[in-house]
Amino acid sequence: MSLKDYEHLKKGETFSLDTLFANLKTDKDGLVAAIAQQHDTGEVLMLAYMNEKSIRETLETGQVCYWSRSRQTYWRKGESSGHRQSLVSMSFDCDGDAILLQVDQTGPACHTNRRDCFFFKVDGDRIVVDSAPVDK
Amino acid sequence: MSLKDYEHLKKGETFSLDTLFANLKTDKDGLVAAIAQQHDTGEVLMLAYMNEKSIRETLETGQVCYWSRSRQTYWRKGESSGHRQSLVSMSFDCDGDAILLQVDQTGPACHTNRRDCFFFKVDGDRIVVDSAPVDK
Repeated sequence: MSLKDYEHLKKGETFSLDTLFANLKTDKDGLVAAIAQQHDTGEVLMLAYMNEKSIRETLETGQVCYWSRSRQTYWRKGESSGHRQSLVSMSFDCDGDAILLQVDQTGPACHTNRRDCFFFKVDGDRIVVDSAPVDK
Repeated sequence: MSLKDYEHLKKGETFSLDTLFANLKTDKDGLVAAIAQQHDTGEVLMLAYMNEKSIRETLETGQVCYWSRSRQTYWRKGESSGHRQSLVSMSFDCDGDAILLQVDQTGPACHTNRRDCFFFKVDGDRIVVDSAPVDK
């Protein structure tokens, strides 16, 4: 069984969250990529990784929890900085290897204090830094 | 050297695209995650993977080219379906392991003919299919 068995469902039809977890397409470390998007403006804020436990915690608490690959630990976004992400909705993609989080981001999402992490923009054969830190 | 040396640049400052490539944080297969977002509506359409060659091709041709992990080959989006992605802009994130592609998507982005791939939405302990195919 895979999520392929569910992609033909009509809009509004449902299946269990446990079925989805059983068909999550994680990498060898048990992770899937998660995109955080500001729910009202549509800004793509950042990309990080989640495992099943951090997904479940996020759904239970309403505060986004990732798995930090660099620190090899749970990463409750904003726990130290205060720049938290409140969950508005969570959607999985067709093949179960990516998550779209609609969030309400407090302050900057990026560790550089920029609103989002995607500030290295291609301009011909150069990269231009296209945003500035929003608070210090 | 890493992109950390460039995150303190001011808005509008630049460095070379080759420097960025030299600091791409790819996985063991040489890939980075790429998010495709419809440039005018803000819809997050899909997440896929790119390697340096597919990034360079995308910049040269203006048509998005991914690396297909399942088929282990270059994947010129829409080549068979006609549902192409024209590149509007490309941005890299702070640590160089994710890309945000602003695109102009022709028709549906998803292989299920839905506009985007994120149609398995969490609703309590259920998943609800929240969109329908847009063309057949």
